[in-house]
Amino acid sequence: MRSESVFAAILAGGSGQRFWPLSRELSPKQMLSVFGQESLIAQAVHRLDGIVDRDAVYVVTNERLFDELRNHLASHPDRSLHDLRYLQEPLPRNTAPAIAYAAATVELVDPDALLVVLPSDHVLEAGQTWHECMSAALRLAAEGYLVTIGIEPTRPDTAYGYIKAADALPAHAVGDALPYRAERFVEKPDLPRAEEFLAEGGYSWNAGIFVMGAARVLAELEAHEDTAAIAQTSRWLAAAQAAGAVDADEARERFGALPGISIDYAVMERSDRVAVIPSALKWSDVGSLVALEEIAPPDALGTVRVGRGVDLDTRDSVVYSTDRLVATLGVEDLLVIDTADATLVAHKDRAQDVRHVVDALKDQGAEEVVQPKVSLRPWGSWTSLLAGHNFQIKLLELKPGCKASLQRHRHRSEHWVVVAGTALVTRDDERVEVHANESIYIPVGASHRIENCGKVPLKVIEVQVGEYLGEDDIVRIEDDWHREG
Amino acid sequence: MRSESVFAAILAGGSGQRFWPLSRELSPKQMLSVFGQESLIAQAVHRLDGIVDRDAVYVVTNERLFDELRNHLASHPDRSLHDLRYLQEPLPRNTAPAIAYAAATVELVDPDALLVVLPSDHVLEAGQTWHECMSAALRLAAEGYLVTIGIEPTRPDTAYGYIKAADALPAHAVGDALPYRAERFVEKPDLPRAEEFLAEGGYSWNAGIFVMGAARVLAELEAHEDTAAIAQTSRWLAAAQAAGAVDADEARERFGALPGISIDYAVMERSDRVAVIPSALKWSDVGSLVALEEIAPPDALGTVRVGRGVDLDTRDSVVYSTDRLVATLGVEDLLVIDTADATLVAHKDRAQDVRHVVDALKDQGAEEVVQPKVSLRPWGSWTSLLAGHNFQIKLLELKPGCKASLQRHRHRSEHWVVVAGTALVTRDDERVEVHANESIYIPVGASHRIENCGKVPLKVIEVQVGEYLGEDDIVRIEDDWHREG
Repeated sequence: MRSESVFAAILAGGSGQRFWPLSRELSPKQMLSVFGQESLIAQAVHRLDGIVDRDAVYVVTNERLFDELRNHLASHPDRSLHDLRYLQEPLPRNTAPAIAYAAATVELVDPDALLVVLPSDHVLEAGQTWHECMSAALRLAAEGYLVTIGIEPTRPDTAYGYIKAADALPAHAVGDALPYRAERFVEKPDLPRAEEFLAEGGYSWNAGIFVMGAARVLAELEAHEDTAAIAQTSRWLAAAQAAGAVDADEARERFGALPGISIDYAVMERSDRVAVIPSALKWSDVGSLVALEEIAPPDALGTVRVGRGVDLDTRDSVVYSTDRLVATLGVEDLLVIDTADATLVAHKDRAQDVRHVVDALKDQGAEEVVQPKVSLRPWGSWTSLLAGHNFQIKLLELKPGCKASLQRHRHRSEHWVVVAGTALVTRDDERVEVHANESIYIPVGASHRIENCGKVPLKVIEVQVGEYLGEDDIVRIEDDWHREG
Repeated sequence: MRSESVFAAILAGGSGQRFWPLSRELSPKQMLSVFGQESLIAQAVHRLDGIVDRDAVYVVTNERLFDELRNHLASHPDRSLHDLRYLQEPLPRNTAPAIAYAAATVELVDPDALLVVLPSDHVLEAGQTWHECMSAALRLAAEGYLVTIGIEPTRPDTAYGYIKAADALPAHAVGDALPYRAERFVEKPDLPRAEEFLAEGGYSWNAGIFVMGAARVLAELEAHEDTAAIAQTSRWLAAAQAAGAVDADEARERFGALPGISIDYAVMERSDRVAVIPSALKWSDVGSLVALEEIAPPDALGTVRVGRGVDLDTRDSVVYSTDRLVATLGVEDLLVIDTADATLVAHKDRAQDVRHVVDALKDQGAEEVVQPKVSLRPWGSWTSLLAGHNFQIKLLELKPGCKASLQRHRHRSEHWVVVAGTALVTRDDERVEVHANESIYIPVGASHRIENCGKVPLKVIEVQVGEYLGEDDIVRIEDDWHREG
């Protein structure tokens, strides 16, 4: 039907500080599986089913997050998420440069390409309404509109942006999706104004979901002096990337020099070609830990609890524990968020300020703001159990049929004790089956690999001993997932 | 000087539920090292230096706590605490039966014996005043008085008992310690009454410290119908114990049938032979987690913090973390108590109700109310790192020159990986030195023992694999500490 090819850019460069300690710098909010059956980013990918072919989906992230994000998606049971395309911004520079980079990349494939832009860390109900919205949006985008999906506001929320609709564009309706020209954008209004918007009608929440021609959005950026460099640098970077000739330092320098502004501010608020499709989709930007209130029914005193423990006389609070025991007594309006290695106790009204806690902890050099306790790998995961002086204990879990990379270490030996399943271990020239309740020793310098050759999950206790135990002491010789270094 | 021998009974049967999660059933408040350089019970023993010979000190506890308490004291650097005498009540029955059992025991050694009774879980400043109080108390006790040490009240505390002094007994003064006859005892008055006591003067706090003739206190108990059985059963139990002929079932039955009442109620409030020695000793019964307010200076907003993390806009709270990262934001009047495996968040005003939290968790079968994460042993300690299905990981730490018992297991194999120090391992007929970065395997059923044969602490990662991993799967063949089973 449509001659233009359709691509998607899932924006996944956010660090999600406001979800600490559930989120970490290297395991940000989009990787949380708290809201629904799968992580927010996996939900975002699946939201594109039937709209964008899987191999036309780009996950836009930055160099720092790339490896963790790919490991995360590669560990999803749906194998179609294992080989997504990734774009790595040389540095995080807000949404306008991220989208421009994606647009420039797909423009090289098809100058008429349409681009669907989705946040990676929101909750949004898919279904018929969603598909009608996207069909209408793609038709409008093919005609040169910059389309945004508006969410019908259900409360005068002051944390969201609002879009005012002007005249309808009935010719582009699809099912119940009736587009309008957009009159104006208003960022985070104060409460009286937000209440006014709801009373007046015709306003939608800006959900950060856009559909537009790749060339169109680049042209809009080029049309303004303060954003032209965003388009130019993105085209340069996309071309260099396509030619396999990116100079990393130059890329960082040029990309880093771009203004770090949002697509709303750079394009949507300025252009007269913006259309909005209001819809009553169930959506949340999951903007703070208070969103956890929605994931379980409250008890008689209004407290939502997930995890082991008790709440006595605890009112209107959220108590969330990933695995440890947490008890509360006689408190109210609290967020008590507990993970294996860190706990946050905050007043609910201060949920937006959790990032200040993260900043303060960063100043202390706290590793717990960066590293998650469990690190996902394409083959499974590892969990840090204890870090001592000159030794470290991990639990490795490998999925049946999966193997870690063939590697060696310059500074550490490893003792592997298999506690469940059966491992096939390569150690230099040997290949040895190691069964539950057996162990094997990997001396410093020996090339080694572990593989789950059985039919059940393989669990191995790894005791590392050495003078240096950093994750970067790893020489990968061979890797199913083409990881380097 | 004195012909009567002097003994001490340190009452250490308390379960200290109000200090959860710092305290556990098997690691109660008296074993906490939070208040001062050593645990409260070690402080209690050392408080007797120069007053009671070490081999005349009895730690009175119950069967359930005995092993943990002895392990705890046996791991103290002061070796004179390793071989204290212990009295095990067949069941916990409050202070009157506990003291009577100690009195009956020392009465067998010397019918004129004097007995100093000390709680094991209080904080009390030692020094000259303390010694003068005890000298005066021993003189009075030798003349048949039941002596209690009174603490000069500094605030109208409603959680303490009060003692009203009558006429002075100047003949028995020692230094500044001037004893009085006691007029009456008042348990936990309400606030107006407590304020009245302070205004009126002549009242002391009842610190639960007593000095009395062993025969005297037994006679006082025998003099009343409702307490006579306490004296009789205690004498029967002490005699059976001395003869090495205790029938455990009969002991439990007879001791369990005794009224579970306090010595205050059973004797001190009734007798006309009670003397009080008021003193300005610094004392606290450390009655709830709020006592943690005293262990570090508060920040500018009145919050006391111990452990890693930050507090932003947190007022008048206590944030105590043993090893994990804890952050607070915008809260006030909270107790946030964090341990390796459990966290409590409570309003300060509810500190007395923490035991209800413990009860509720017990109903859930939560192991975290019973077991501490780190278990002390005479030879060092073990820390539980991970309990999985059919496997379990522990960190063993052995002090130089110490060895665990020679033992075997019926259900589990053990892999020992030495990560620091050098171990001498006995495995059936072998004796093998295992060095750092080496491992050894102990099959099911093999008799084995680990010994730190080096000069530095030995650290071993123990991976247990088996169908049953309970602590009670242990057959001790030989043990330096004469532990059984």
